[in-house]
Amino acid sequence: MRVGLLTGGGDVPGLNAAIRAVVKRGEGEHGHSVVGFRNGWKGLADGDVMPLTRQHIRNVLASGGTLLGTARYHPHADDGGLDAVLATLEAERIEAVICIGGDGTLHAASKVAEAGVRVVAVPKTIDNDVWGTDRSIGFDTAVTIATEAVDRIHTTAESHNRVMIVEVMGRHAGWIAATAGIAGGAEVVLAPEEPFDIDRIVRFLQHRHRAHASFSIVVVAEGAVPARGTSMSYETQVGRFGEIVAGAIGERLGAEIAERTGFDTRVTVLGHVQRGGTPTPADRILGSRFGVAAIDAVTAGESGVMTALRGEDVVLVPLADIAGKVKQVPADLLETARALA
Amino acid sequence: MRVGLLTGGGDVPGLNAAIRAVVKRGEGEHGHSVVGFRNGWKGLADGDVMPLTRQHIRNVLASGGTLLGTARYHPHADDGGLDAVLATLEAERIEAVICIGGDGTLHAASKVAEAGVRVVAVPKTIDNDVWGTDRSIGFDTAVTIATEAVDRIHTTAESHNRVMIVEVMGRHAGWIAATAGIAGGAEVVLAPEEPFDIDRIVRFLQHRHRAHASFSIVVVAEGAVPARGTSMSYETQVGRFGEIVAGAIGERLGAEIAERTGFDTRVTVLGHVQRGGTPTPADRILGSRFGVAAIDAVTAGESGVMTALRGEDVVLVPLADIAGKVKQVPADLLETARALA
Amino acid sequence: MRVGLLTGGGDVPGLNAAIRAVVKRGEGEHGHSVVGFRNGWKGLADGDVMPLTRQHIRNVLASGGTLLGTARYHPHADDGGLDAVLATLEAERIEAVICIGGDGTLHAASKVAEAGVRVVAVPKTIDNDVWGTDRSIGFDTAVTIATEAVDRIHTTAESHNRVMIVEVMGRHAGWIAATAGIAGGAEVVLAPEEPFDIDRIVRFLQHRHRAHASFSIVVVAEGAVPARGTSMSYETQVGRFGEIVAGAIGERLGAEIAERTGFDTRVTVLGHVQRGGTPTPADRILGSRFGVAAIDAVTAGESGVMTALRGEDVVLVPLADIAGKVKQVPADLLETARALA
Amino acid sequence: MRVGLLTGGGDVPGLNAAIRAVVKRGEGEHGHSVVGFRNGWKGLADGDVMPLTRQHIRNVLASGGTLLGTARYHPHADDGGLDAVLATLEAERIEAVICIGGDGTLHAASKVAEAGVRVVAVPKTIDNDVWGTDRSIGFDTAVTIATEAVDRIHTTAESHNRVMIVEVMGRHAGWIAATAGIAGGAEVVLAPEEPFDIDRIVRFLQHRHRAHASFSIVVVAEGAVPARGTSMSYETQVGRFGEIVAGAIGERLGAEIAERTGFDTRVTVLGHVQRGGTPTPADRILGSRFGVAAIDAVTAGESGVMTALRGEDVVLVPLADIAGKVKQVPADLLETARALA
Repeated sequence: MRVGLLTGGGDVPGLNAAIRAVVKRGEGEHGHSVVGFRNGWKGLADGDVMPLTRQHIRNVLASGGTLLGTARYHPHADDGGLDAVLATLEAERIEAVICIGGDGTLHAASKVAEAGVRVVAVPKTIDNDVWGTDRSIGFDTAVTIATEAVDRIHTTAESHNRVMIVEVMGRHAGWIAATAGIAGGAEVVLAPEEPFDIDRIVRFLQHRHRAHASFSIVVVAEGAVPARGTSMSYETQVGRFGEIVAGAIGERLGAEIAERTGFDTRVTVLGHVQRGGTPTPADRILGSRFGVAAIDAVTAGESGVMTALRGEDVVLVPLADIAGKVKQVPADLLETARALA
Repeated sequence: MRVGLLTGGGDVPGLNAAIRAVVKRGEGEHGHSVVGFRNGWKGLADGDVMPLTRQHIRNVLASGGTLLGTARYHPHADDGGLDAVLATLEAERIEAVICIGGDGTLHAASKVAEAGVRVVAVPKTIDNDVWGTDRSIGFDTAVTIATEAVDRIHTTAESHNRVMIVEVMGRHAGWIAATAGIAGGAEVVLAPEEPFDIDRIVRFLQHRHRAHASFSIVVVAEGAVPARGTSMSYETQVGRFGEIVAGAIGERLGAEIAERTGFDTRVTVLGHVQRGGTPTPADRILGSRFGVAAIDAVTAGESGVMTALRGEDVVLVPLADIAGKVKQVPADLLETARALA
Repeated sequence: MRVGLLTGGGDVPGLNAAIRAVVKRGEGEHGHSVVGFRNGWKGLADGDVMPLTRQHIRNVLASGGTLLGTARYHPHADDGGLDAVLATLEAERIEAVICIGGDGTLHAASKVAEAGVRVVAVPKTIDNDVWGTDRSIGFDTAVTIATEAVDRIHTTAESHNRVMIVEVMGRHAGWIAATAGIAGGAEVVLAPEEPFDIDRIVRFLQHRHRAHASFSIVVVAEGAVPARGTSMSYETQVGRFGEIVAGAIGERLGAEIAERTGFDTRVTVLGHVQRGGTPTPADRILGSRFGVAAIDAVTAGESGVMTALRGEDVVLVPLADIAGKVKQVPADLLETARALA
Repeated sequence: MRVGLLTGGGDVPGLNAAIRAVVKRGEGEHGHSVVGFRNGWKGLADGDVMPLTRQHIRNVLASGGTLLGTARYHPHADDGGLDAVLATLEAERIEAVICIGGDGTLHAASKVAEAGVRVVAVPKTIDNDVWGTDRSIGFDTAVTIATEAVDRIHTTAESHNRVMIVEVMGRHAGWIAATAGIAGGAEVVLAPEEPFDIDRIVRFLQHRHRAHASFSIVVVAEGAVPARGTSMSYETQVGRFGEIVAGAIGERLGAEIAERTGFDTRVTVLGHVQRGGTPTPADRILGSRFGVAAIDAVTAGESGVMTALRGEDVVLVPLADIAGKVKQVPADLLETARALA
């Protein structure tokens, strides 16, 4: 059997582990041949194919990014895109497609599956907001990087009596903010799940600095917004691809806090460092397990499903079940962040 | 309410996060006062008490070890031990005990609970073999350290055409071996769950080195043993406290492989570095969540239970349910390790 | 003898190693008692004194920041500042002062020494631009953090065919830019030492992307500026304390390159993460050696001097020799960065 | 001009940075073509040649090991070895050789140079004991790894009231032991430079544990030995290639201290992890600068010289000047280690 493989959307650490697993398991256990499409669905539509053998996946397990390249392109949203996909698959005699990606890619996967292609998807996103799985590839590494940054900023905040704002990724869900906030010991965590009240934050910081401490760390997700009817108005700023403009809420929040409290306030925007570099062991293992599960699934004839982590187990969930849903941070985790501030 | 807190057994990274969470949540939300016992159950039996306020837990979140100290002592196994525990609790007017530890501490916790004390336990062990919870505190950090070591050894193995043996911890379960083996791309993973056949390993290495590769990495858990009836006999060497003698199986395995294959073979025994140092974000978060759950549980009147991670949730499980059980690595994870070799 | 110790200017990793060394060596070898001034020269002027014994320096070797706190205040620039310093020293019966700091602190040190106080200085700055010493405390850690960021951004640049701009610290000298640029394999390094020509950069990137590569990394020091007479005009933006506004040149450069090339261009501003967190071994060792050398120097009656690294040796150099000088990156190191692009 | 390049002796992190620099600078600036010899001098004698172009050095800057492979073979010590070297060079029309290695390789380089070949050497060794240069490639990474291990062991030592022995590399010189000892805050540092007196160590530990502390860390170089006439006799154990048997002195020392003090004593042997993995920025920069300097030197007609770091500068030193010399740790650095214990 010939199996096609692609990575779509933003790159995250752990993609190469999944690619490697698909190839090793596919070649070794199942005797498949695996081919890669360059730059996501675009490569599948354009017939931009590369061979993927054991040769090509040497020494990639610990490397970030994706050896296949990636792009933001969705065949169902492009005129003639689905036909081009079908044409490539026929020309290359590819019987099944494994796609690794986030919301956009998963949605495209369900559309391509509906068009009659055997498709199994693997979830990746540093935002960890894909419904139906405890974890997506890339999240653990992003949290590790964000926590390390908060650790570093902690020591400089303490030495200088400052309020430090750290903006992390998370458009629709505050997973990185909540977990890096807990792990880094942040005083305030702001996530999209719970619009914030700037007055309460200001009162909290003033009380804290008056009472005992001389510094505070505020971790804010890029998608956090003030609650309606509170004394700060703000609309999320969005770029060309629907991505949030890095630094917008962080800078704004820093300006508000500085003005309202008079405290020396500094802003750090983590940005792209959160999605690059050597994956953590957890992301390599998750990528490896998802890769094995995906190639096993297509071999077993599955289609229109996504690999998912549930507790200790890797399972398959129908793409139909997760469509349109966003996995947000549960209230008790945000409460833990608050309790430990 | 006065709550006592202790850490027992071997230290692991993430204990201080749990201690901090108990104190912050206990003081802040519940208005309790928390006291610590030095050096585990020994301190509780001896009345070796220290105050634990917000002052004492500053800057401990990212630090390894335990600020309370720890020791291997079990009151129920010591003549008069339980009485001493009860005496201390009465003298100090302590109404509930939270204990953080591994198998030994959890067993002691159930005995102390049976003696009428309100006890909630928190599982920690780098071996990850506590039944009833997906993860125990310390495991993620240990895997991270072990994987980093395998990564390092990988480059030197490759440059020198060698077989490198890496011995990691894991007495009854091969969690570190399996996960660091997958994450580090090891060629062979040996775990206590599946006694190994040295002849198969030797044949595999010979085939691999003949076919294409010029180096191999073997990750072996300290508790791994050869299968009965195979051509290598070996009995696990155990020290004073029932702990496995570090390096014993690793060195032996290295000698066997060197002799049988003639390959240049080197052994690295990771040892204590696996249990020290800055905890990963995952261990800080797990420690923090378990600490919050434990103090909430004693406040709610729970006793004889352990905090546990199940998927995304922290739950309570009766200590009675986990007694005498060891959580071993499931066959499919060991199979994944093999598939990706 | 009673010796006073302070840290001034921005905090850097490795300060605590120096503080620890002054105390350990001072108490242990020389029998001195050491006291600390809180928040730099301000604490010395205000008499804000804290005891510094072996107790206070436990577990600080690997921690970032400064346990003494720091501030930007210079007694000679403040009316009555020098008198206040002298008054504190007399009241506290302090015979010598060790100050750890950057340009501002070193200048203040020479002024205080001229006023008759025995003063020995220790250089710290992540910018590494203090004249007379191969290295200042904090530089190695900053380079390590910046390189790690470039490594991370490398993988994401490669996966997405982008030009990535990374702005690092370095107002008057491009040490971090040059070294992190070489270590991270950047295609373009821009430092204050050599004003740049945007047209040449654009031509280089266009050629590179046309020829073979699909991504590029530009590392720019915050103090880099375009050469006069070239097609981009820009003036360095400076904040209240004379510090450069973070992100200003990086954002501007990103906008210019995006407009002129049409390439997808992203900007990351490292900011405060560069100056925080666990010091590298090299910074701990440098801090330790400088601390020992400084306390030995005041004991020997030296004054108006600074500890300095010269090759393998720690020596003393007169503060008068370094006044007004900036150690810039030598042309051959910038040439190496270019040669390896 | 055709230039040959090889790496000899044990692998260290930073070799690939040097290889990359030779190729980039050789191709780009000088228009040379560079070829590699596989597995050190053996490949040069056997004519085992591989092309080395910009293609081959992609993404190697941050990788450990050597892409050329390495081996312990010295042509002058092998019958007909030098003739084979000359034959290969003639057959391949190679006009100059750059060799990167430690003592053995440098010695071989001088012999090959004497035979009329244009040879420039680059020093690498994690032991840092090559005479004539402040630093050799690999040392900074090894110290970083060793310090991280000491940091980790620190927390577990503290929690358990133990004496922890950490054996690090260093046969003839204790550079890693001294620097990782200072950086990690070890209580005792044992180096080959100063044979130790076990009685003094035991007295020191007993005093320390009685007085105030409950744990101690001893860092011992593999080449450390007891002083003659003291109460412990020991002879360094050496393997086939003259390398010291890992763990021998560490285990022996642990047994002696345990027996003489009765303290709970544990031994960790770092072993091969010290020489693998991602090089630190300092080693990548040193490798890059040495690589550039070496190719510039052969181009300029230099021969029989070695690149060397002196303060901030890279210079050339005659191989004749360094022959037979070992750069040991200066007494003042060992004194600093003692002062800060």
